[in-house]
Amino acid sequence: MPSEVKIFAPGTVANIGCGFDILGFALEYPGDYVTIRMISQNEVRINKISGKGVQLPMEPDKNTAGIAVIEFLRKFNIQTGVELEIQKGMKIGSGLGSSAASAAAALFGINYIFDNIADMGQLISCGLTAEAGACGSPHADNIAPSLMGGLVLIRSHDPLDVISLSFPEDLFYAVISPDIELQTRMLRKILPEKVPLSSAVKQWGNIAGLIAGLHNKDYSLISRSLEDVIIEPVRSQFIPFFKEIKSQAMQTGALGCSISGSGPSIFALCRGEQTAFNVSESMAEIYKKNKISFEVYVSSINKKGPQIS
Amino acid sequence: MPSEVKIFAPGTVANIGCGFDILGFALEYPGDYVTIRMISQNEVRINKISGKGVQLPMEPDKNTAGIAVIEFLRKFNIQTGVELEIQKGMKIGSGLGSSAASAAAALFGINYIFDNIADMGQLISCGLTAEAGACGSPHADNIAPSLMGGLVLIRSHDPLDVISLSFPEDLFYAVISPDIELQTRMLRKILPEKVPLSSAVKQWGNIAGLIAGLHNKDYSLISRSLEDVIIEPVRSQFIPFFKEIKSQAMQTGALGCSISGSGPSIFALCRGEQTAFNVSESMAEIYKKNKISFEVYVSSINKKGPQIS
Repeated sequence: MPSEVKIFAPGTVANIGCGFDILGFALEYPGDYVTIRMISQNEVRINKISGKGVQLPMEPDKNTAGIAVIEFLRKFNIQTGVELEIQKGMKIGSGLGSSAASAAAALFGINYIFDNIADMGQLISCGLTAEAGACGSPHADNIAPSLMGGLVLIRSHDPLDVISLSFPEDLFYAVISPDIELQTRMLRKILPEKVPLSSAVKQWGNIAGLIAGLHNKDYSLISRSLEDVIIEPVRSQFIPFFKEIKSQAMQTGALGCSISGSGPSIFALCRGEQTAFNVSESMAEIYKKNKISFEVYVSSINKKGPQIS
Repeated sequence: MPSEVKIFAPGTVANIGCGFDILGFALEYPGDYVTIRMISQNEVRINKISGKGVQLPMEPDKNTAGIAVIEFLRKFNIQTGVELEIQKGMKIGSGLGSSAASAAAALFGINYIFDNIADMGQLISCGLTAEAGACGSPHADNIAPSLMGGLVLIRSHDPLDVISLSFPEDLFYAVISPDIELQTRMLRKILPEKVPLSSAVKQWGNIAGLIAGLHNKDYSLISRSLEDVIIEPVRSQFIPFFKEIKSQAMQTGALGCSISGSGPSIFALCRGEQTAFNVSESMAEIYKKNKISFEVYVSSINKKGPQIS
């Protein structure tokens, strides 16, 4: 049994346009690092949080990485002491699955130390407990892709049914993350409780088209399907210059562009790395011009999930 | 230019459980036959309707096959005389796309006579005009699979965007069609105008799962995804013994079972022909026991679409 391990787990883009609450993909970067260290005291504790999350709670039962480890140990009835050191690559509230990435890194690490006693379903289940503690709504569309890598469908939450989807090699993301914070809880509250059946039909037509397009490497179909008629119109109001950025991204050749998770980060999917770079630059121009600080990320979808660092 | 041609076009199962208004597949049987005959008089007329649709209107502008041909000739600005003879393999109001099958056969035939002047999109568009005339709601989930064969996604109606989906070879249907008639118009009216967002999310999770399962030949995923939480609970009330039939079908090994189109026909999807036969027999028992007359159909999905007879 190793006594210490440091894990990188990726940030994630949840929803992917039309797939509210059921789709997400893993990023090559940014992501979080969590060091798990076995200690002689019989407790779970966090001894350091660095990077972009210094304001996060140090109490293990209020921190997603801490909750995830506590849940893991409880589930497998393990009495042990664990110290966590968290290095955040993303801020909480960025819409890039920051809380899920910390939980995924911690879970992958503690599972590695205990000889991979948990299967993927059990890890996701522990991660969901952590997500419920962190943002009030236990949705797997960040934790599942962060733990599994790739592009993931959460067909059902109860019972949990998670499927790795195939996608073309040449699919790249451009993500722009403005330096403002949005509250996931608030962004859930503003959603309508009911939606017109006609809009729901449009949405599920697009989801079906997106899955078929990804499987068939049909970029035109992917592009036509990356349209969210239900969530984006409501949430995009809270993201400065969303319309302008989306319009720029599409003009520069993006297949589609929408809100990452509940925002404020915005993602575009592109065919080829060069297009993704061009798109990221065109999106960045809008924020530069309007003096909003931001970060951009461009890469292919992360297929590996968490990695020992 | 041939002066006469007789075409078979297949009946269809629209919706396929979770895919309300966006999915449909073509049947090997039943289907409709339409004979198209060039005549010297400059008119479109119907000279005979036989089989299961003898009560249908003979006026060409009130009959889907007639409307479809009129629309085809109008679209391509063709002045000619056409006589139609229609042999119905399904009753109107059976939920097996009867009106669409007649339109598909007529359109395939008239297009054949005019050297395939129309592409598939144009044929479907003419078919939609016919469907609007026949049942008040121009949805392509019957006409598209009847014309194209196979299992078809209608990603969008406006603009029309129709995609052939792949599916496993070993997928068979069992369809039971009770001898009662339901009005599509009425069955549209009883649907809720708005649906809970949480139900819509469940539905699009299932649709995504179904498309992925069909592509990956993952029968377990297909089975888990064949669940309609929005339409079936409302419409199944109008189909006698629906619950009992579905329960029997599932116990006998069906992957899933739901309403075909707006009913009253019920379909089950099965892995393998023998299972489909067993399922059809188990469904039939319920109607036999309750003295409801019915027909059953078992076959693989029709990949060819309309055929010269």
